[in-house]
Amino acid sequence: MSVKAVKNLFDALFSLTDLRELFREVKPLYEMDEEQRSRAASCLERAKRCLAELEEFLKDPKPVEEAFNMYILDDIEVRAREELFINIDPIQPAGRLTAEAMKALIAYGDGYSTCDWCLRPFRLDKVKRPPLAEFHAELAEFLGMDEVRLMPGARRAFQAVTRTLLEKGDVALISTLAHYTEVLAVEEAGGIVKEVPLSEDNVLRGEMVAEKIEEVKRETGRLPKLVVVDHFDYMYGNEHDVKGVAKVAHEYGIPVLCNGAYSIGVMPVNGKELGVDFLAGSGHKSFASPAPSGILATTEEWVDKVFRTSKMVCDVTGRIFEVKEVELLGCTLMGAVAVAMMASFPQVKERVKRWDEELEKVNYFVKEFLKVEGSKVLSQLPRKHTLTYVDTSGSFDKVARNHKRRGYFLIDELTKRRITGIFPGATRRWKLNTYGLTWRQIKHLAWAFKDIAGKYGLKVGE
Amino acid sequence: MSVKAVKNLFDALFSLTDLRELFREVKPLYEMDEEQRSRAASCLERAKRCLAELEEFLKDPKPVEEAFNMYILDDIEVRAREELFINIDPIQPAGRLTAEAMKALIAYGDGYSTCDWCLRPFRLDKVKRPPLAEFHAELAEFLGMDEVRLMPGARRAFQAVTRTLLEKGDVALISTLAHYTEVLAVEEAGGIVKEVPLSEDNVLRGEMVAEKIEEVKRETGRLPKLVVVDHFDYMYGNEHDVKGVAKVAHEYGIPVLCNGAYSIGVMPVNGKELGVDFLAGSGHKSFASPAPSGILATTEEWVDKVFRTSKMVCDVTGRIFEVKEVELLGCTLMGAVAVAMMASFPQVKERVKRWDEELEKVNYFVKEFLKVEGSKVLSQLPRKHTLTYVDTSGSFDKVARNHKRRGYFLIDELTKRRITGIFPGATRRWKLNTYGLTWRQIKHLAWAFKDIAGKYGLKVGE
Repeated sequence: MSVKAVKNLFDALFSLTDLRELFREVKPLYEMDEEQRSRAASCLERAKRCLAELEEFLKDPKPVEEAFNMYILDDIEVRAREELFINIDPIQPAGRLTAEAMKALIAYGDGYSTCDWCLRPFRLDKVKRPPLAEFHAELAEFLGMDEVRLMPGARRAFQAVTRTLLEKGDVALISTLAHYTEVLAVEEAGGIVKEVPLSEDNVLRGEMVAEKIEEVKRETGRLPKLVVVDHFDYMYGNEHDVKGVAKVAHEYGIPVLCNGAYSIGVMPVNGKELGVDFLAGSGHKSFASPAPSGILATTEEWVDKVFRTSKMVCDVTGRIFEVKEVELLGCTLMGAVAVAMMASFPQVKERVKRWDEELEKVNYFVKEFLKVEGSKVLSQLPRKHTLTYVDTSGSFDKVARNHKRRGYFLIDELTKRRITGIFPGATRRWKLNTYGLTWRQIKHLAWAFKDIAGKYGLKVGE
Repeated sequence: MSVKAVKNLFDALFSLTDLRELFREVKPLYEMDEEQRSRAASCLERAKRCLAELEEFLKDPKPVEEAFNMYILDDIEVRAREELFINIDPIQPAGRLTAEAMKALIAYGDGYSTCDWCLRPFRLDKVKRPPLAEFHAELAEFLGMDEVRLMPGARRAFQAVTRTLLEKGDVALISTLAHYTEVLAVEEAGGIVKEVPLSEDNVLRGEMVAEKIEEVKRETGRLPKLVVVDHFDYMYGNEHDVKGVAKVAHEYGIPVLCNGAYSIGVMPVNGKELGVDFLAGSGHKSFASPAPSGILATTEEWVDKVFRTSKMVCDVTGRIFEVKEVELLGCTLMGAVAVAMMASFPQVKERVKRWDEELEKVNYFVKEFLKVEGSKVLSQLPRKHTLTYVDTSGSFDKVARNHKRRGYFLIDELTKRRITGIFPGATRRWKLNTYGLTWRQIKHLAWAFKDIAGKYGLKVGE
């Protein structure tokens, strides 16, 4: 029944969207011919029918196992993963939209929707209506930095930094757990990455960075031009010693870019306290925003460099676009996505204060998860992040070896229990993320793993 | 009344969005406590009330002059420009969403929504569900090119090309009417722009490009490394001789990037027929898509260069990300925006076939507009594009000189007639775009300008 309810919910939204299109067609006088009247009536009828069925559902709401299939058109299906399943995908949970961001997408979907009130100096971060200028200022404050710009993804923020700091052949340090986009951002700028190994507990610390700097200096005769450090990495979700790394890098006069894709938007992050020069965040990963969205924040010292404005003088006309920022190519994150980030911001500001409860929940889950004998957690314990890397070679993988569906049995069993998001087929090392689940959902999740283990005869502790 | 109807429409959409958030909170078991039940009921009540009022409105729909104000939260207002006004903004009309794109934003809004079925080789343009791989292939075919990638805006497509082709100090030719983002893309890559002047009719032709190439060769001893040509420019909306320019550039062995931000998505464009090496399009400008979205298409010859994959080998781990494309930094346009482009594509494919009718409508409008004595059209006539640059120094500006609201009188008067989108205060040279208006809307628009002229005693011909 809940599948049908979710269908009704989407169908109601879609029929109102069809009505909206009709409104646009008959604007501004709203004179309607017969065909239009009948189309309008049928949109409304559809919506009303959906509401009636939803009302029925709400009298006695419960889930049933029934396939959800519904299409926007042709083969573009409706995505209802978040309505129907507990989603523990490693990268998706903190990018789930708030209701306000959804409304922003509805109201600001049209292409250049943020340009209605774009007046001098004609730049997105100066637009007052909707209040993007204010949002930029508040976001900088929220991050403990001096200036911030919205970017189409954290990777584009990395790129702005590497393109500003690196010349061809320059070295940038990253960690052996660096996200691939950091590697690409360095490569795109013509630089070379050198990896800093982690300590045995899979944490990057200042001393290893110092060692690597010395090594690069010895081998190339020059210092690296940039150190990139992940606040929390994409694999273990471990916390790295950003402060210690920044201190060491700065002793050598090397600027530091902190990749906060897994932290900005879910926990309090203060760039100045961390002591970094650049802070990059991801809207779609951790800021309850649609893709592609990101944040680049910096300090007074670097603002004129990374956000430098155009100096090019056109030879014939003498045109010069001196307010446009080169690395942003002018305005770089317009429209629906920018407004959605702004609309999520009030809730994001609140939710980072509840990070401790998120940690309580993930640590509760981990404790239950480890009751299945043979299961291990590879990430640091207790968990300081909801992203967690586990090893079930000694538990669920044993089942997989003799199951006709092999490793897929685990995702099959989870799906039956209305859980999704682990890598299909994985039963050895895999990742999950419990961000944003309610206590009830966390308990269901913990129960599910133990229940599956029990079904297949794995030992489950008390 | 229509203002109220539009409010009801949005409010219905928003109350269903609130209900959707509740569904996510109680998933997967849909057990609801008292507070949740009452919240669900009140969402439904609100939606039902809105539908009832909409039903009432549809019995006798008409507009009234009443201010629209409605907020998503705090000071983020609902944008209802396209529901209430004829919008002749120069850059907005062709970026208005289709109903399908709106539905895609609703269904795929969450951050990494396109990554549910991302399997090997883990790249957006290979994802089969939703059918992004197919979309990429069809889009290439639609544009008469060999390969295509989605980008966060046409400007990011320019950047991928300039970063691929230009070394520091290399010259790229642009026209004296080039869009500022072309200048920035060259500057960002370390190149230098040189402008090619247009002929007297404001059209770029091959012979001027040849002249400029010779001039650059004489002055620098080297050939330009790239020629950028606008298919239709942002100012006059004039058609430039892309074919002629490409022919000349290729005689010198120089690759050509065609900026199709104003053409791709509204009219048939075939890159191979135009003879260009790179074709850039804008989703939010001309492809009925949300910002930031764009397209970069290229030919077999350039695909391995502009879409080159990572070659960087990490020194410690030996990691290499050999399927990830460097200029895209991996996947560059994920989530809602990518799916919205895909959802608009079927309609885009159809609407380009109706370009002739769009031209009929703009030429009809222009004919009527010119009946106001003293008004001029600066763009080429007959219009080959719906974007049109006009000069009303001899008509509406005369009124402005003696009006207490100065130039703002014109936007005031248009607003009263439910038209918006011209630059506030402009009465001399300004731009408008009639794309996508119905015949009834076009006639209303033509009437409005004549009506305003009449009101202020300007002569209006028959």
